[in-house]
Amino acid sequence: MGAVEMMSFGERFRVTLFGSSHGPEVGAIVEGIPAGRPLSVERVQAELDRRRPVGRSLASKRHEEDRLVLDGGIVDGRSVGGPIRAHVANTDVRREPYDRLRDTPRPGHADFPARVRFGPAADLSGGGIFSGRMTVGLVIAGSLARQLLEPIGIEITAFTRSIGHVDLLEVPEVPLAELRRRCSENEVWCPDPGTAERMGQLIEETRRDGDSIGGVIEVRAVGLPIGLGEPFFGSLESTLAALAFSIPAVKAIEFGAGFDAARRKGSEHNDPYGFVNGRVTPMTNHAGGILGGLSTGAPIVYRVAVKPTSSIARPQRTVNLATGEETMLVVTGRHDPCIVPRAVVVVEATTAVALAELGLRGGFLS
Amino acid sequence: MGAVEMMSFGERFRVTLFGSSHGPEVGAIVEGIPAGRPLSVERVQAELDRRRPVGRSLASKRHEEDRLVLDGGIVDGRSVGGPIRAHVANTDVRREPYDRLRDTPRPGHADFPARVRFGPAADLSGGGIFSGRMTVGLVIAGSLARQLLEPIGIEITAFTRSIGHVDLLEVPEVPLAELRRRCSENEVWCPDPGTAERMGQLIEETRRDGDSIGGVIEVRAVGLPIGLGEPFFGSLESTLAALAFSIPAVKAIEFGAGFDAARRKGSEHNDPYGFVNGRVTPMTNHAGGILGGLSTGAPIVYRVAVKPTSSIARPQRTVNLATGEETMLVVTGRHDPCIVPRAVVVVEATTAVALAELGLRGGFLS
Amino acid sequence: MGAVEMMSFGERFRVTLFGSSHGPEVGAIVEGIPAGRPLSVERVQAELDRRRPVGRSLASKRHEEDRLVLDGGIVDGRSVGGPIRAHVANTDVRREPYDRLRDTPRPGHADFPARVRFGPAADLSGGGIFSGRMTVGLVIAGSLARQLLEPIGIEITAFTRSIGHVDLLEVPEVPLAELRRRCSENEVWCPDPGTAERMGQLIEETRRDGDSIGGVIEVRAVGLPIGLGEPFFGSLESTLAALAFSIPAVKAIEFGAGFDAARRKGSEHNDPYGFVNGRVTPMTNHAGGILGGLSTGAPIVYRVAVKPTSSIARPQRTVNLATGEETMLVVTGRHDPCIVPRAVVVVEATTAVALAELGLRGGFLS
Amino acid sequence: MGAVEMMSFGERFRVTLFGSSHGPEVGAIVEGIPAGRPLSVERVQAELDRRRPVGRSLASKRHEEDRLVLDGGIVDGRSVGGPIRAHVANTDVRREPYDRLRDTPRPGHADFPARVRFGPAADLSGGGIFSGRMTVGLVIAGSLARQLLEPIGIEITAFTRSIGHVDLLEVPEVPLAELRRRCSENEVWCPDPGTAERMGQLIEETRRDGDSIGGVIEVRAVGLPIGLGEPFFGSLESTLAALAFSIPAVKAIEFGAGFDAARRKGSEHNDPYGFVNGRVTPMTNHAGGILGGLSTGAPIVYRVAVKPTSSIARPQRTVNLATGEETMLVVTGRHDPCIVPRAVVVVEATTAVALAELGLRGGFLS
Repeated sequence: MGAVEMMSFGERFRVTLFGSSHGPEVGAIVEGIPAGRPLSVERVQAELDRRRPVGRSLASKRHEEDRLVLDGGIVDGRSVGGPIRAHVANTDVRREPYDRLRDTPRPGHADFPARVRFGPAADLSGGGIFSGRMTVGLVIAGSLARQLLEPIGIEITAFTRSIGHVDLLEVPEVPLAELRRRCSENEVWCPDPGTAERMGQLIEETRRDGDSIGGVIEVRAVGLPIGLGEPFFGSLESTLAALAFSIPAVKAIEFGAGFDAARRKGSEHNDPYGFVNGRVTPMTNHAGGILGGLSTGAPIVYRVAVKPTSSIARPQRTVNLATGEETMLVVTGRHDPCIVPRAVVVVEATTAVALAELGLRGGFLS
Repeated sequence: MGAVEMMSFGERFRVTLFGSSHGPEVGAIVEGIPAGRPLSVERVQAELDRRRPVGRSLASKRHEEDRLVLDGGIVDGRSVGGPIRAHVANTDVRREPYDRLRDTPRPGHADFPARVRFGPAADLSGGGIFSGRMTVGLVIAGSLARQLLEPIGIEITAFTRSIGHVDLLEVPEVPLAELRRRCSENEVWCPDPGTAERMGQLIEETRRDGDSIGGVIEVRAVGLPIGLGEPFFGSLESTLAALAFSIPAVKAIEFGAGFDAARRKGSEHNDPYGFVNGRVTPMTNHAGGILGGLSTGAPIVYRVAVKPTSSIARPQRTVNLATGEETMLVVTGRHDPCIVPRAVVVVEATTAVALAELGLRGGFLS
Repeated sequence: MGAVEMMSFGERFRVTLFGSSHGPEVGAIVEGIPAGRPLSVERVQAELDRRRPVGRSLASKRHEEDRLVLDGGIVDGRSVGGPIRAHVANTDVRREPYDRLRDTPRPGHADFPARVRFGPAADLSGGGIFSGRMTVGLVIAGSLARQLLEPIGIEITAFTRSIGHVDLLEVPEVPLAELRRRCSENEVWCPDPGTAERMGQLIEETRRDGDSIGGVIEVRAVGLPIGLGEPFFGSLESTLAALAFSIPAVKAIEFGAGFDAARRKGSEHNDPYGFVNGRVTPMTNHAGGILGGLSTGAPIVYRVAVKPTSSIARPQRTVNLATGEETMLVVTGRHDPCIVPRAVVVVEATTAVALAELGLRGGFLS
Repeated sequence: MGAVEMMSFGERFRVTLFGSSHGPEVGAIVEGIPAGRPLSVERVQAELDRRRPVGRSLASKRHEEDRLVLDGGIVDGRSVGGPIRAHVANTDVRREPYDRLRDTPRPGHADFPARVRFGPAADLSGGGIFSGRMTVGLVIAGSLARQLLEPIGIEITAFTRSIGHVDLLEVPEVPLAELRRRCSENEVWCPDPGTAERMGQLIEETRRDGDSIGGVIEVRAVGLPIGLGEPFFGSLESTLAALAFSIPAVKAIEFGAGFDAARRKGSEHNDPYGFVNGRVTPMTNHAGGILGGLSTGAPIVYRVAVKPTSSIARPQRTVNLATGEETMLVVTGRHDPCIVPRAVVVVEATTAVALAELGLRGGFLS
């Protein structure tokens, strides 16, 4: 059977994920950052901290986890031009609950296809590779990418747009820094306090029900130079989407007007150009800041749908691969009822990686 | 300024697009097809014919265009293991209407960012690279990919799910071959005759108004072996999406339940497993046939949103880059009021390319 | 059986060869040249003309061949940032002599392993892919690469260092332009007229004998910025060698002192540093201008060994794959008795491609 | 300045080196080994042990170093299809001797171009990346590659062919296993005891003189299926050479007759075919087992020249980059007088990596 060799992304800003959820560590190697760029390890740690589980009781328990260990590539706060390798230890591995899943694949989880593909010996380890814990490496890479982008003025912020049926109806029209600040004041990472409160309540209710819930994350990126992206296979949409879908649980993505664009006339959808402060500017942004795969100068806007976590405490119908019989499964262990808030920082990370890759490719970052 | 080097896709099934809309030809080089596989050039031609403009009056005019020229890689109806190069000539190039666009970028089109990125000398040629005509190369590659997939039982069909507000409410539950047959009986490539009729009417009205309209294409792929795809960066979703977004005008994609998954509970969304004819089978398919980036054995189901064509006859506000003044633009020339029906075959093509790439990577096609 | 997908080289300066010796054309796609660089198609043609067969009688016959056809990527003498595709037609294909080789593989030629790998249906076409004629694409790419390198002061010249036992004992210490001029005055492309005369005589004698002869080509490249190259897999030696060995008939390569370095003490071999015109300069050049895979500022110097052409008129022992018997083979058709002089421009081309790739990678050409 | 992103090799058997000579560890990530293959970590350790310094006094001192730490990819002695990461700790780092080199680049070493390329802050770390210690990662990858190759009958052995002017005149015609056994009985890894003795004496003399000495390593690989390799850029010679030149100190390579082929007539050089045990077989092996970039079934034979170590105790002329004056340098610290014997296992490793890459590409190992 074939090997899993695609744990690497990128031609210029190359990310290789390593480790697994049940091994000693998870992390990433990042290649392609030019020498001499200022890089703060503390900022990477801060982004990792944003991946912590949501909910007051849990949050404190795991507070000291995920300490970043850097090995090479940064000296005296600057890139040296070589690969940057960083990881965090897996300190809290509890194998037992997973061992029972060996023969009864969880509905909605990679268990079953991974076992068929990689065999019974490999499936636990496979499960480890498919784990959301691997996104630690994405966050590491994304935080470095972001630090490469900021000096040319690119800023990225994502936030929770909806949890289940609780929607953020309107996105506050404030600068990105302020949007970010508002998000940081609540655990669900939503810029409106009232909506955030209702989202949090829904998550807690869902937890009590032994169930899980999905949601939508919206991303904004501003300050891109005009023309960033490549036509066709390296389009901004292609690159952002490929990376977004590498996050387990993401099942949809739309740029700008997105699916709504399919309902519209060209005369309604096209963004007219005008001059703003002497610069050519799209006067609306139905395109989400992207035309022909290239940035237009307007903010990049896109949304991703995150499905509900597959591991739930409620009994679910599945099969026993050993006995060949149908059976009911109750997944134990600690599982997030909603990973949307924790995924916000991961989506920011994949966005930064995409922009770093295309920025380097287009000569905007060299 | 950086070069556009990303006209290539794939590590195992490698596609390189060449040509431009205003040059002598457009086509593709396809590398990676093992030697000895049966490949019909006629079938590639047939797929190219499906890209023809929709609407009776236009269809006849361009009937003899896009004759495939093959150069190398196929001998006596079989792959020889080397690169396959194929192209069609651009026989009907009318440069003049485009020259006027040099200084007045079309709203909704790549004109503006391409010009900023590649400079005034390059933008026409750039426009040529950004043209939908480049999808000829995708269709060539896709048709070859499909012929590589069929012997292991993989079938792909796409169809028009909506045009503007005209929706296909229910997808007929028939085998893919029958679905395909029904689509082929109308110009909009929709399996329901009544809906197809209304879609066609909407397109004609839109044309008369000098406007354009968007729509949604749905894709089905069946017969995939379980486990096709790679975790993370090479997930089925990542690969299908990256290729779908390389099609100009695609602005959104969703797999299975897609954005609706973000509204649901895990207990509603997870697809339970059961045995069907002795085989483990997901009993519902909210996952769109994909878990952890791998195929589950259930049909792959996804939808893409196609925005309305940007080139419309109605006056639009834009700027004159030469004079620095705002101006109104009326795009002349022949433009499709709706490219959704023509894009159906292109989406099938990118689907086939994605599955061929991942099939080769996973050892399913060697 | 596996596919031949490796007709592409490079990450930044990407070359894809296409065509075959018996198909309609051979050529290359070149990706990665930044937009706006001056590129002369005439210069590419001039390099192609240097590939012409050596010997007065032959030269005239094929004088009109190999006219370059450019399709895209260059407008008004400048790169537009997109792929450059160029080819020459195969106007003088004589299939018949080759058909007889189908079952009796030529000693010293790719016939036998190609047939085993790609099967009987493919071997002619395979022969076509393995042909020295494919180096047309290398020369096209190399000439474009050279034009990218010259503006930063990089010059490349190769010459014939030996044919059989006829050696150029000493390389004249003159500027590269003068070296080049002297080479251009004789058909064997050797900078010393007396040696060139003896080389030419040896080639003519060899031809009369129905035999062939090998030789050595030496390459000089000057004007490289210090530090061009990458450590380990992207070292200057790795990249130059990988490309040199892609030329059929090259069997050895040595940099600087080369094999002689294996005989020496460190105290004899190390190149001491001194100041020349205020610049740090290696005072000798046993390293061939490369340390740790990076350029030192001294001229790049390397030599490649070219084996004698495998197709000779003398009877050779081989096997008949159809009958399973041993047999004698006399290769008819027009074959060069010595391809060394024609290969000089090809080695210059691969050198230029290597330096363009590494120059772009290191940020020296952006 | 550009980034060093090329610490990775391969498309199918992908090797990424990490660490540096002065950081906490060095190692490799290996991707592309199909799931379910037997892999012994002990064998990797045994190959690492062969990299130990030569000479009785030194050998014992460092005996316990370089213990392999495996993290992921192998479970219960079999590959699981995911990346294999392994490293050894740098336990004996002595920074001080190197710090003095910061401003006085060692002749023959990467110091100078690395400093120019990556700047003063980076050069120590750069020195670390350029260190021969990084070949630990090559040996790890090579040992895994070898274990992937053996089940299809491929065996690789390298040995010391010469040290300075001490040559192994004739290679014993014995099976590879026996050749290997004889090599393992002496420290210089030469199959003839008398020659080995003289080589060892020369190395000891050289050490006493505070000097260093070069040598030649010869490689044999047998059991390759016919047709392994790709035409042009992925030829066996290109791939083997690119990897061989990634080993610091390798300055030349020749396949089969090598440079001697340049002296010969085609009638002398071509290897005639005959039948041996009913199989088509080249009756001589001037081609070194490779035609058209593909394996012929005859043993692969090639030689690499290793230059004398650059770090020697003798005073050498260099420059002081801080003061701008010429100066004399005496390199202190522990340095091998001859790295040829230690490089034997590294050349075997790069050979195995090349064959694994091409074997996977050609479908011979799947």
